[in-house]
Parts: sequence; structure tokens; C-alpha cells
Amino acid sequence: MSAPRVRDVPIGLRATGTRTESDSLGTVDVPAGHYWGAQTQRSLIHFDIGDDRMPKAVYHAYGYIKKAAAIVNARAGRLPRWQADLICRVADEVIRGELDSEFPLYVWQTGSGTQSNMNVNEVISNRAIQLVGGKLGSKDPIHPNDQVNMGQSSNDTFVTAMHLAAAEAVDDHVLPAATRLREAAEAKSRQWAHEVKIGRTHLEDATPLTVGQEWSGYAAQLGDAIDHLERTRKGLYRLAVGGTAVGTGLNAPPGFGKEVAGQLAELTGRPFTSAPNKFAAQASCDHLVRVSAALRTLAVPLFKFANDVRWLGSGPRTGLHELILPANEPGSSIMPGKVNPTQAEALLMVAVQVCGNDTAVSMAGAEGNFELNAFRPVIIKNVLHSARILADMMDHFREFLVEGARLDTDRLHHNVDHSIMMVTALSPVVGYDRAARIAHHALDHGLPLKAAALQCGITEDLYDRIVKPENLTKPGVPSPDGHRRP
Amino acid sequence: MSAPRVRDVPIGLRATGTRTESDSLGTVDVPAGHYWGAQTQRSLIHFDIGDDRMPKAVYHAYGYIKKAAAIVNARAGRLPRWQADLICRVADEVIRGELDSEFPLYVWQTGSGTQSNMNVNEVISNRAIQLVGGKLGSKDPIHPNDQVNMGQSSNDTFVTAMHLAAAEAVDDHVLPAATRLREAAEAKSRQWAHEVKIGRTHLEDATPLTVGQEWSGYAAQLGDAIDHLERTRKGLYRLAVGGTAVGTGLNAPPGFGKEVAGQLAELTGRPFTSAPNKFAAQASCDHLVRVSAALRTLAVPLFKFANDVRWLGSGPRTGLHELILPANEPGSSIMPGKVNPTQAEALLMVAVQVCGNDTAVSMAGAEGNFELNAFRPVIIKNVLHSARILADMMDHFREFLVEGARLDTDRLHHNVDHSIMMVTALSPVVGYDRAARIAHHALDHGLPLKAAALQCGITEDLYDRIVKPENLTKPGVPSPDGHRRP
Amino acid sequence: MSAPRVRDVPIGLRATGTRTESDSLGTVDVPAGHYWGAQTQRSLIHFDIGDDRMPKAVYHAYGYIKKAAAIVNARAGRLPRWQADLICRVADEVIRGELDSEFPLYVWQTGSGTQSNMNVNEVISNRAIQLVGGKLGSKDPIHPNDQVNMGQSSNDTFVTAMHLAAAEAVDDHVLPAATRLREAAEAKSRQWAHEVKIGRTHLEDATPLTVGQEWSGYAAQLGDAIDHLERTRKGLYRLAVGGTAVGTGLNAPPGFGKEVAGQLAELTGRPFTSAPNKFAAQASCDHLVRVSAALRTLAVPLFKFANDVRWLGSGPRTGLHELILPANEPGSSIMPGKVNPTQAEALLMVAVQVCGNDTAVSMAGAEGNFELNAFRPVIIKNVLHSARILADMMDHFREFLVEGARLDTDRLHHNVDHSIMMVTALSPVVGYDRAARIAHHALDHGLPLKAAALQCGITEDLYDRIVKPENLTKPGVPSPDGHRRP
Amino acid sequence: MSAPRVRDVPIGLRATGTRTESDSLGTVDVPAGHYWGAQTQRSLIHFDIGDDRMPKAVYHAYGYIKKAAAIVNARAGRLPRWQADLICRVADEVIRGELDSEFPLYVWQTGSGTQSNMNVNEVISNRAIQLVGGKLGSKDPIHPNDQVNMGQSSNDTFVTAMHLAAAEAVDDHVLPAATRLREAAEAKSRQWAHEVKIGRTHLEDATPLTVGQEWSGYAAQLGDAIDHLERTRKGLYRLAVGGTAVGTGLNAPPGFGKEVAGQLAELTGRPFTSAPNKFAAQASCDHLVRVSAALRTLAVPLFKFANDVRWLGSGPRTGLHELILPANEPGSSIMPGKVNPTQAEALLMVAVQVCGNDTAVSMAGAEGNFELNAFRPVIIKNVLHSARILADMMDHFREFLVEGARLDTDRLHHNVDHSIMMVTALSPVVGYDRAARIAHHALDHGLPLKAAALQCGITEDLYDRIVKPENLTKPGVPSPDGHRRP
Repeated sequence: MSAPRVRDVPIGLRATGTRTESDSLGTVDVPAGHYWGAQTQRSLIHFDIGDDRMPKAVYHAYGYIKKAAAIVNARAGRLPRWQADLICRVADEVIRGELDSEFPLYVWQTGSGTQSNMNVNEVISNRAIQLVGGKLGSKDPIHPNDQVNMGQSSNDTFVTAMHLAAAEAVDDHVLPAATRLREAAEAKSRQWAHEVKIGRTHLEDATPLTVGQEWSGYAAQLGDAIDHLERTRKGLYRLAVGGTAVGTGLNAPPGFGKEVAGQLAELTGRPFTSAPNKFAAQASCDHLVRVSAALRTLAVPLFKFANDVRWLGSGPRTGLHELILPANEPGSSIMPGKVNPTQAEALLMVAVQVCGNDTAVSMAGAEGNFELNAFRPVIIKNVLHSARILADMMDHFREFLVEGARLDTDRLHHNVDHSIMMVTALSPVVGYDRAARIAHHALDHGLPLKAAALQCGITEDLYDRIVKPENLTKPGVPSPDGHRRP
Repeated sequence: MSAPRVRDVPIGLRATGTRTESDSLGTVDVPAGHYWGAQTQRSLIHFDIGDDRMPKAVYHAYGYIKKAAAIVNARAGRLPRWQADLICRVADEVIRGELDSEFPLYVWQTGSGTQSNMNVNEVISNRAIQLVGGKLGSKDPIHPNDQVNMGQSSNDTFVTAMHLAAAEAVDDHVLPAATRLREAAEAKSRQWAHEVKIGRTHLEDATPLTVGQEWSGYAAQLGDAIDHLERTRKGLYRLAVGGTAVGTGLNAPPGFGKEVAGQLAELTGRPFTSAPNKFAAQASCDHLVRVSAALRTLAVPLFKFANDVRWLGSGPRTGLHELILPANEPGSSIMPGKVNPTQAEALLMVAVQVCGNDTAVSMAGAEGNFELNAFRPVIIKNVLHSARILADMMDHFREFLVEGARLDTDRLHHNVDHSIMMVTALSPVVGYDRAARIAHHALDHGLPLKAAALQCGITEDLYDRIVKPENLTKPGVPSPDGHRRP
Repeated sequence: MSAPRVRDVPIGLRATGTRTESDSLGTVDVPAGHYWGAQTQRSLIHFDIGDDRMPKAVYHAYGYIKKAAAIVNARAGRLPRWQADLICRVADEVIRGELDSEFPLYVWQTGSGTQSNMNVNEVISNRAIQLVGGKLGSKDPIHPNDQVNMGQSSNDTFVTAMHLAAAEAVDDHVLPAATRLREAAEAKSRQWAHEVKIGRTHLEDATPLTVGQEWSGYAAQLGDAIDHLERTRKGLYRLAVGGTAVGTGLNAPPGFGKEVAGQLAELTGRPFTSAPNKFAAQASCDHLVRVSAALRTLAVPLFKFANDVRWLGSGPRTGLHELILPANEPGSSIMPGKVNPTQAEALLMVAVQVCGNDTAVSMAGAEGNFELNAFRPVIIKNVLHSARILADMMDHFREFLVEGARLDTDRLHHNVDHSIMMVTALSPVVGYDRAARIAHHALDHGLPLKAAALQCGITEDLYDRIVKPENLTKPGVPSPDGHRRP
Repeated sequence: MSAPRVRDVPIGLRATGTRTESDSLGTVDVPAGHYWGAQTQRSLIHFDIGDDRMPKAVYHAYGYIKKAAAIVNARAGRLPRWQADLICRVADEVIRGELDSEFPLYVWQTGSGTQSNMNVNEVISNRAIQLVGGKLGSKDPIHPNDQVNMGQSSNDTFVTAMHLAAAEAVDDHVLPAATRLREAAEAKSRQWAHEVKIGRTHLEDATPLTVGQEWSGYAAQLGDAIDHLERTRKGLYRLAVGGTAVGTGLNAPPGFGKEVAGQLAELTGRPFTSAPNKFAAQASCDHLVRVSAALRTLAVPLFKFANDVRWLGSGPRTGLHELILPANEPGSSIMPGKVNPTQAEALLMVAVQVCGNDTAVSMAGAEGNFELNAFRPVIIKNVLHSARILADMMDHFREFLVEGARLDTDRLHHNVDHSIMMVTALSPVVGYDRAARIAHHALDHGLPLKAAALQCGITEDLYDRIVKPENLTKPGVPSPDGHRRP
């Protein structure tokens, strides 16, 4: 067949009513205003469940896959150049999101993602047919299976699309947002490097540290989580494509997976390669399970960060109130003037959602059978959801809370001055037991630490030389002469 | 103030650009085409996180609450009748979903739900102002806080709205769908009451039962789960409203909670009452935590049901294939003619999602502090999500799989005929040890059970009298003379 | 065979080395000092995994089952009276825990629990043989399968034993401990009924309530959790016994399940009945899944209770410190004099463990296949673990923290006096917006609320009549004349 | 003080009754037969909860820490050499497990692990005192705090001990066992490299592959999980020691953490270093949270492996039965001759336990506050439990199932011969639609694929050239002339 002329028809079908499409089970009426075919329509009928649609990012990823496969097939002479060009042209429309309205399917569908793959195949077929002036539904000259899906199965390509979509979400959204938040925490750490505050362990007064040290901890926790996520997401760069139906590569030529992966790397700028074992790659979603777990282990330090911050900001009069949080909005419909740590609360909720999502991913990831894990849609839905809300949330938390946070230095000083736990510094000099007696004496009689120490026989000179809050924020063992020994 | 004339203005604001609204933190520009006010707009700016919007069902529930409160306030003379009527009129629009587009807020917002409450208050205020020809944003004559929120706090009403929305989802969607599925399983159980099949334990051949018995198990599991959910959701009927800010009822008159709950019962037809302890009701979401757990314990038997069904339908040539599942759609983009148990797969995925959602709910439910649980939005999002996908999924599974399932009776008979585990019936007569020797003999030599039994010295007469598959599906101990003894 | 003489031999085998036992796969050497037989020994060899042993409570429950079955079998003439008496005698030793050392098997074994059932059968057989002077391992005159297991399968009895053991744990340990803790919280609620304190929502200062009201919330949350657990555990009273291998009751006479359940009710004093559908009862562990979920929904309010308490006790100098917790032990190896909320911390850890356990139970509960759930050991291990640590923990938390807690009344008064949120009481009189201005004025200028109110034009008379902390802990709307209106 | 003479007294105290010990809260009677002191005894009294004891591995790790600290302290002249030597000598006894009976504390204790640290300090103190002939409880000449705990806090050392113990479990147990299992799977993959079998996707018949390919997938999944765990456990090598109370290093000299970490590396042979940020290291357990998640993501592919294997072994007559599993034990107490996939079931249960454990770890990991995560005991308990049961289970599964598994080649051949899905190979030649018609024709008429193909007009020559099962297990596109094109 010679190449038909391609016309520059804009996207859109002006028809109303229905059109008859067909698949191997027979004919189906589809809405005439849409490009999709029989199998998409069957899925819409049988899986109209809840509101959860397959994320658009999966379809955009599929656009890359269809394009890459067409290029590789054409290069090897299996697909006429003009057919490949046609497929690539429509695939570009898919990639750019211009055909998003043509991908209406639900998450709760076949566990392999076949219906979404066929949705893409059908839409590309009919849009290509439109471009060459053919008859929609004729599958001529671009057949959804024989041309668009050439050398492919849903079993290898859907999980490939999942990897592409998840890699984009992690690389371009989660990691940058996490890095920005870590940097914001570091900036605060530097800004507050010399502000001494009382430490707290078990929520109870402990020895002092600087606010900058405390915030360096948030930054360091985030840094470790980022490193772990960076290493873990590398698994996403290994693609199943080329395994076809069961991992053997039947109906794809040798080397097809490698070539398509290379093409995808070129198209996306990410270092995709062909998964070394296609049986594992199709029978499991293990790399996504690990990425989901890594997102959860990012949510864990975020939870701690936000929780600390809301407690440190509590008050204004009867809480800890070492931190003054930005007042972004009124806090109460009944209590006038109330301001709440809402960004922190939102982050805490996002964190528990990410944990919940990960539970679902983990359960689904375990349920593969033989040559296929048939819980893919629920896995990609939850991974992309976790990535999205984490990324957005970190940016909001940073912008609307962290960056605008200020210190209540009066409160900081007051707390340091009134705490008893600086008695710890005396311990190496006078012994743990005597130091404990001083602390109990202070508490039992409501005394400042110094007064209690003097009453317990410590000389004022010794006390003043040893118990200096700023000194207590650094390593060092006080000696009886009051100098800190290295 | 005397009652202004109410005009019959249809919903909608034709203005473009922005309008200035104000709250206690100052002024905010809001889109002029919307009713919402300053606090909604602040939330949109600060919480533009992901795609998760507060479920509309929460707002519809709030419509009932604002209406009920207005009625009660008016009845007691605290609110002029015409103000109450105006609020009720707009509340009815909220209830009917006519103002849905005015409720754009995200799930990830303040943990109390205040922003969504204020969204409702602002929209009712401005819509009411429109109806009397007033100036949008003037809060006159209907102020979002002073009139629409009269006697209320987000702290008591948001969790009340959560209960209303969840009760509706469970009562009107989950329980009926579960009951329909249980009935469908029961119908199959009756239909197949006399079809003998091989039982399986540990996936291994066991003694026979009827297909009807097997399906009676699915129905019974569902029945127990329904009973449990029915009992558990009763906690949702106890409402926090009346507790206001911290549970004490400050700024609401004595009896307010009871009257509003009674009014809500009247408006919705559900047996709502006032929660006996408002401190517990506002500081926790325990009833929702239990309902979420009950939804998960409904997902558990559903998982088993769907899992069994997809295995029983496996094949067609090399699986168990006792069941023939409806072919709703082609199953593969590469393997022509393949049909997959897609409804079962979708149900399995829904079940794991419900487990994941419940993890989030449970974590969030534990995190209340003092007088408030500030993880409410994530709780209601997940409870309503679980309810929705379970209800829809059960109906689809029933309609597109259970009702159309047929038996492969040839396979059933073949399996019963070839199994060895009917040797169990011989055990009470010849002893466990001798029966075991017969079984091993059959296996080791690839013999039918009868041949093995005869070779091991059992008389044909004895064998034939005892090993009758249909008899083995009922209680009874065979006696040496071959009759089953009661 | 006539009844052999039973000698009064004490428990114990003086032999050393090994003894040869046999089962249907052949002979096995077992330690001569133990009663167990070949199948127990095979399990020990093949499942020496970790340290988790099948809980002894399961074996004690099995003692009841073997006894009840023997009584019923004897009554119907299927088992000679003397054999039944012998089984009952040894079963009583099992029930009393005297043979605990004979039940060494691991949790990680066959999913049906068959190995533990056979362990019981073998031990009873050999102990009975010892009592009549027979030869250990001869299975004569009491055969592990033919007599001890008569009319039974592991498939029906193991899940029955699980129900018995779990019912005992919930009825006799969890519910009483929870009730004691609820009563202790109620006692504190009464004791502190008139102590006014500042409320907190979002961790931020809110309107006041009494300490008694706050604690009434803890008690009420516990009460609801107790009610739910009480209702949910009723499912445990329905027993699978009588279903034998696959639920049909093969090799058990009609009515056997009912009679054994009745006998178990008589022996244990709990209202056990026969499960109405044995297929569901054996193919699932749904009732245990629900009980596990109910334990988790008890852990949720406990988490909140303990979390509040440790925060309220935080300090002593720089925390909230409204509550003075008992100093049960020194808190730090380095900080002398430190006291920490350790009972609360232990409870929080127990609560997260219970959540983790429930995750495992829920996953396992979903994994039944056909006529059996083969994840039973992991389910009963986790349910009993959760029950045990919850019950013990609640008693410790009550005794060592709740009962000894005292109030720091100075701090309570100071907090109430300095809070701003009592401005809420002015709101119904002066309007939300004006009240908000007063609050912001107080905050911005570091003023007490009253000073700010006066500066904003409120008369002292009005202020004093309305803003009375003790009044603000009750329902009621202040009127401009300062009386609270009903 | 000059060095006292050290006598070679064996471990053990012959005293009975009680001995008085003291701490900063006063005196406590302890059992005279034990070395522990007042704080250990207080913990035993107040935390007698359940049966969960702090794992011994934590104490062994603490032995290393106390030894390393003593060496470093002595080297810097802060601790007399003879005191350091004495501490080291007892620490070696701790490391070798010789003092295990002296560490009786429960998991449910203070969240920092202080009580277990003090338990170690007290035992070393008293044992050292015994060795020099001093008076137990006198704290002279080795004081639990001043000498044994010198330069340390529980806050830095307990989490250090957790890292040591977890690193040992992962390095020496989990990773080697996982590697052995992966190698066993690889060996099977090689052994069965040329056995063709039917593939299954969605549990439904698919195109063929070799058994070796299928098993290569198990090995590859394990390999990826091992790689991930190896990378993730590196976080365990970073130690908090040196941070003391709140991370600042107060009371420890500069460089102390680095030196102790170096010493620990030398003593244990693992590459321990000092954590770069001590605030993060003490306020979180993030590295353990990630290791727990990595253990779970190892459990996920194990679940799939075991699940596949038990299904492939199902039967023997009415299941899939492609695999013949070793008969390790009789499978049923009622069904003679039954053999079940019990190792697979045990592994599946271990996997769900690991998921449950990880839920607890993850929740606990998020709950740090300020300078301390006070959920450490529950974290280390669950991490070590997961590691232990995974390691043991993988070895058992390998030894008692994988290595003894055989193929039922008759069944394999039969399945390949009867499947229809080899029609896929025709698809590139005759088109998807025509291939689908052939498949449906075969199914509808109960025909072998070849017969159906011929009836649908395919020539026998074409069919025979293309549909060769062994060819279909490799990449390649058939051409109409029957050769597979590269």
C-alpha cells in the first residue's frame, strides 16, 4: 500500500450520536464525537466504578512508547515509513496532552492495563485514519493491534508506561520539591545557628541546643530521604518493553526491547535501558513497590518535621510558642483571631495518605501470579498520587510555613533560663548522683537551678563557669576548673 | 431589621474579573463569577495541592446542617424568621448540588475542616445576599459567621457533616450493593445446589462438596460482613453538633445539639441523635475509624470471593476451569481470543485500595490532640472513597460476572471422578493408616482411587457402597455395611 | 477391646535418647523424653523458623475441643466410654497447662494448623497410652487420628480453637482491663469536674473547659470502643467444629457440630454455638479479622489518650505541664533528675504494634482459597498478641500513670488567665468581626484580653459580665446584659 | 584510686532473697541472685507487659558500645586504664551472651531505651564490682553512670545499638539466606532451561515459555531485592554515638563519636562511621524505617514466588500440578495421603507478618518529637523480628521445597499441546483479527488449535512452520514463509 496523503486536520470529531466500532467479540456503538473504539467503550460500560480515572500521565507515557516502537519498527523495515510517521504524529499529540479527553477509562479495570493500552491503540488508529481521510473504525490503514501495537503487548508496555510516568513524577516533581524544602530548612538552620533553645526529649526539658542545630536535623533527615529515593528510583529506568506477552519476546524481533528503550531514553532524556530479565519485569511491579516505599520513607521525616513545627508554634499564650508561624488565614469559624498551623496539618495528612497508598501498593505488588502482576492500575494510581501530593505539599509547606517562620526569642530565652536540665553539665564534675540531687531539690522547692545548686553546696564560681547555655550546645566535658576539656 | 424582599434570581453570577472580599485578616480578591469569599480564596491559594477535592457529599451534608441550625435558631427566636428562611432556601440549593461548583477546596487543608465550613458559610451568605439584592461581600444581611454559622463551630459541624455523608454512603450505597451481591451469590448457591465438585484445601484436592455449598459460603461471609457494617455504622448516627468550639457548647444554647440532631433526623430520614459526649465526639473520629475498619472487613471476604472465582474460571484449557466467566471484552492486545477475569481483578484491586485507605484512616484517627482531631479531611476522603468504590464494584461484579457465570460440568465431573481424597470416606471404616496407604498407592502408581483400593484389599462392594461422591457432601459417618450412620 | 486399667502415672517420661514414631510417610525418631509423635517431630525439623511458637492458649483451647468431642462421641456410642474417659482425662491436663512443654511447634507451619492439631492428637494418644501401660508410639489403644481426632479435621477444629482462645483473651483480659481504665478515667473526670483549664484545638489556645470534661472524653472514647469490641467478639462464639475437612461434615455424624459446640459452652461457660455456615467458617477467619480490627479501633483512642497525657505532663519548666505524672523511675542515663512519661510511651508503642498486627491479620484474612483459609497461624498469633499487650498495657497505664496523676493548678489558672480565646464569648454580643479585632489587638500588642477589649471600646462592665471562665465551660449564649440565655 | 586486683570469679551470684540497690529516686530491693540494679528492677515492676522482651541482640550490641567507649575514654585519659579494662572484660561477657539472663526487660518500656541502657550499665557495674571483690550496689569502683556510661546517653547509644543489631541481622542472616535462595532458583532455572510450559497471564492460558525462564524471573526478582537491601542497609553503618543527650555532644569530648564509631568498626568488622548529623540520628530512626521497608520489599517478591509455587504444585489430580513438591509431612488429620505446600504457606505467612511489622515501624518512625524519637523499642523489635523470620524462612523454603521440587513433565506437555494461545504466533502473519477468529473457533467447538486453524483456512504447512512451541519461547516475528525473522 502506498502512502496516503496526510491532511492537517485539527483534533476533533464533529459527529454526534454513535458510530459502530468492532473488535474480536463483535460490534459496539461508541459516541461519534470520540476517537476511541470498541474495547474502550466496552471498558466504559463494564467498569464505571467510582471516580478514579487512569492518570493522564500514563497515557502521555504511552505516547512515547507508541512513538518509540513505531520508529524502531520502521527502522527495521517492519512498518512502512509513512505508517510510522503517521503513528508518531498522533503519538506526539498524545504526549502533549492534546488527546487527553479521549482517555476516559477507570482505574478499576483489567489488572494488566490492557484496556488503557487498547484505548491508546484505538485512538491513535482512528486519529491517524482521520488524518489520511479514511473511515473511522475501519482500522485501515492503521490497525490498532497490527500497526500501533506492533511488537508489543499490554503486558510489557503498560508496566513500561508505569515506569515512565513514575520516573517523571519522582525526577521532575518529588525530588526537586524535596530538595527545595531541604534547602529552606538549611537556610533556617544557618539563620538561627546561634539562637540557643532548650532541647526536649520524651517531650520533657533536656539540655540546650541551638535552633540552627534542630533545623539542621530536619535538613539532614530530608537529605537522607532524598538520597534513598534517588537511588531507589533508578529501578524505574529499567523497562519491560520487548518482553511482549509473557516475557519471551514472542512477536517482537530480537533486540526490540533494547532498541525501544534506547529510543525512549532519547525521546525523554532519561537513562532508560532494557530490563535484564523480562519475566521479573512483567510478573512483578517490584521497582514501583520500592519507589512507593521510598516515598513513604520520605513521608516519615516530613511527618516529624511538620509535627515538631506545629508544636513549636503552639500557643500563642499557653503552648510552647518558640516559633511564630505565618498567619495565612483565619483559623476558626467561631473563635475570632485564631491562627492555626494549617500547612503542617495538611502535610501530616498527606503523610498518612502516602502511608495508606503504600499499603495498597505493597499488597498489590505481592499478588502477581505466574507471568503477570494483574494489580497494575491500583499500583500506578497510588504511586502517582503519593508523588503528586508529596511534591505539591512540600512546596506549599516550604513557601507558606517554613520560609515565613520566625522565632519568639523572648520565649526561647525564658525557657533556657528556667530549665533545670543544664544540671547535666555538672554531672561530669560532681558525679551523676549529686547532680541528680540538685535537680530534684530545684524541682521540689520550685527553685531556679542555680539557687538549688548553691543550696546543695556547689560554689557560685564553679556553677557560673560550667553552666553556660551556649557552651552546652557543643561537645566537650567540663572540668572542675570550668574550662571545657577537649 | 425588617425582612427584605427575596427575588427569584437563578444561581449564577455574570460578573467577570475579581471582587474584593474580606475576613479578619484583611481583604482578598476573589473571582467575581463565584459566590465564595475571602477565606475560601485564601485556602485556594495556600492549599492548591494535588487533585483531591473535598468530596461534594460533605457539602451536601453541610447544607442539611446549615438548614437545621437555622430552623432551630429561628424557632428559639435567636434568628429572625426571614433570615432563617433565606438560609434554608440556599441550603436547599446546596443540598441539591446546585452550588457544587462553588465548593472548590482541596482535601489537604486545615485539619478541622474549617475552610470548607467557611466556604459553605460564605457561599450561603453571598447567595442569600444576591437573593435580596444586596452587595456581595457585604455580609449584610446574612453574615457568614454571625448568621449562617450561628451556634456552630467547624469543630462540631464538620465532623457532623462527615457522619452525615458517611451514613448516606453506607446506608444508601454500600449496604444495598452488598445485599444485592449476597443475594446473587445465594441464587447461584440454590441454582447449583446439587452439582458435586471437588473440594480444595491448601489448593490441594480434598473431599467433595456441591458448588451450591461453596457459594453458600460466599453468601454467608458477605452476610456476616453486612451485619457487622450495619451495627458499626450506627455510631455515625451520633452527632457532635452542639459542642461548638471545644465540646462545651459555648455560644450555643442548652439543648441546641439535641434539637439540631432531631431536625437533621427529620430532614434526612435517618435516626440521628446528639452524641452523648461532645468532647469525645470532637476530639476523635472514632466512629468513622470503626466504619472504615468495617469497610475493610467487608473488602476481606470480597477479596476471597473474587480470588476464588478467577481461579475457578482459569483456563480455558490449562487452568481449573470449573466456572465459565462471561466474556465482557477481549483480554489481550497481543493474544487473540483471550478472555480474562477482569471484574474479579478490578474487585481485588478495589479491596487492596480499601485496605490502604483504612491504614490512612486509622493513622489519622489516632492523631487527635486535646479537644480536636485535626486529621478530619483525610479521614472523610478515604471513608467516602472506600464506600464509593466498594458499592460500585459490588454491583459491577454481580452484574458482569456473578450473574452470568456458568459451570463447566464436564470439568466438574472429571475432577470428582479422578480425585483421590474421597479415600477419606473409607477412613472411619478401615482406619486412617490403611486409608492413607490406599491414597499413596493410587498416587505412586497413577491409579484411580478405586483400583488402588481394590489392590489394597478393599472389596469392590465395600468401596462402591461407601465412596459415593454425592453422599460425601453431607454429614455422616459411613459404617462397614455402607450405610451412613447418623 | 475391653477397658484397660488406668494407672495414676504422673506426667513425664524418664527416657532419654530417641524413640521411633510413625505416620503415613514412615518412621521418625523423636526425643524419648517427650510425648509427641512423628508429625510433631517432622514439623519441628521443617519449621524451625524464628522464635515464634504457637501460643499455648491455642493448645488449651484444643484441650477443650478434644474433651468435648470425646464426650459427644461417647454419648452417641461411637467411642467406647473408657476411651472417651481416657481422652478427657488427658485433655484436662492439656487444659490446665500441665502438658505445655509438649507443644513446641512454631507459628510458621502449615497454614491450616494441622501440625498443631496433630501435636495435640499425638500427645493425648501417647499420654493416654502411658496411663494404661501401653507402648508409646503404638497408637494403641488410643490412635491420634481414629480416636482423638474422631469426627474432626484440623480444618474445622483449628479455627474453633482460635475462636476459643481469642474469646478468652477478649472476654477475660481485654474487656475487663479496658473497663477498669475507663472507670479510672471517669473517676478522674469526677475528681476534676470543676477545675477550669484552657482548651486546645489544632494545638492552639481555644476556649476553656474543665479538666473533668476533658477526661470525660477519654472515658467516653473508651466506652464506645468497649461497646464495639463487645459486639464484635460475639462472632467468636460461632464455631466451625462439625464441618470436618471442607465444611460438609463428612465423617462426622449429623448434629455433631451442634453438640460439640454445646459441650464447649458448658465446659467454658461461654455462649458458643455452631456456626450456621461451615463453608464460610472454614474458608475464612472473618470473625477474627473483625476482632483484630476492633482491637485496633481500641488502640486508636488509647493512642490519643496517652498522647494527650504525655503532652499535658510535658515540662516540668518549658512544656505544658498541666498534669503532674508519677515519677516511676529516673528518666535519663545522662540527665540527672529527669522524669519521663514512660507509661504513655509504652502505650503508644503498644498501639502501633496493634496496628501492625492488624495489618498482618487483615492481609492474611483475605487470602483464603476455596474451602480453607491457610493463613491461620499468623492470624491467631497476632490477634492473641494484640489482646495480650493491650490488656496488660491498659492495666499498667491505669495503675502507674492515670491513678497517680495530679494537676498543676497554678499552671491551669495561669493559662486560663492569659488566654485570648475567651474573646469567643463576646462574639455573639459584638459580632465575630469585632471580636476578631479585639483578639488581634491583644496579640499584636502583647496585652491581656481584657485590656485589649477595653481599648477596643468594650465596657468593663460588659466584659466582666460575659468573660467568666467557669461560665464558658457550659452551653449558653451570652446576651448583652451579661446573662447567659438558654 | 589505684587499680584493685581483678579475680577470676565465674559469672553467677549465689545469694538468695533480695539486695538493696539505689538510684536517684531512692532504694529498691532487687533479687540477690542477679546483677541488675535499681533502675532495671523499677522497669520490671512497672513494665511487666506481655511476653515481648527486648531482643538479646540489642544487649550484645551494647556490649560492643560499652567496650568501645571505655577504650576511647581510657585512650584519652578520661578513664583510668584499669577501669576501662574492667569494663571491657565484662563487656566481652555481654557480647558473648554469657550475661543474657541479666537482661530481662520488656519491649514496652521507655521509648528511648534508657531502661535497657541502664540495665547494661548496672550489670556491668555490679559484675565489675564482683570481679574486684567490692560490694554489689555500691557503684564503687565502677559507677553505672559515671564510668560505664561515660560520655554517653541512652539517646545516642540506644539507637547506635539498634543499628549494630540490625546491621548484623541483615548482613549475616538476611542477605546470605536471600542469596542462597536466589542461587537455588537460578540453579533450577538452568536445570529446567529447555522445558517448555504454558505461560499464564491473568491466570489464563497464554503463550509458552520455558520453566527455566519462569524461574529466572524468581531469581531476578530476588536479585533486585537483595541489591536494594544491600544499598539500604548502608544507612545502618552511620552511628549516633557521640551526640549524647540531644545531639550536641554535651559531656562527650569533641571527636568522641568518631573515635567510638571507629572502634566499633574495628571490633565488629563492619564499616561503621559517625553519623554526619547527630540531631537527625537521634530524633529519628529513619535508616531503620528504610531497612524495614526494604525487608518488606523483599517479602513482596517472596510472596509471589511462594504463591506461584504452591499453585504450580496444586493437585495432584485436579490442580495445575506442573510442579511436584517434596512431601515433608502428612498434610491432613482427616484426609489420608494428603500432601500440602506447607513451606510455601509458611513463607506467605512470614511475608504478611513482615508487612505488618513494617506498618508498626513506619508509624513509630514518624512519631519522633524534637530531639528524640521515643518509639525505639517497638522499632527494633519489629525490624529484628522481620529479619529473623525472613532469613530462617528463606533457608527452609529453599532446603525443604525449592531444592526438592520436580517437574510433572507429562502435565507440562499436555498443557502446551492443548493450549490455544499459541495462535498468537499466527497474528503477525495473518493479522490479529483473523487469529482471534481462529481462537474463538477452537474454543467454541472444543477443537485443538491446529484443527481450528485449518478449518479457518490456514494451510497445514503454514501452521506447522509457525506454531512450534519451542520457537515461541524466544523473541522473533514469524514470517509467512515460516522462518522467524530477526
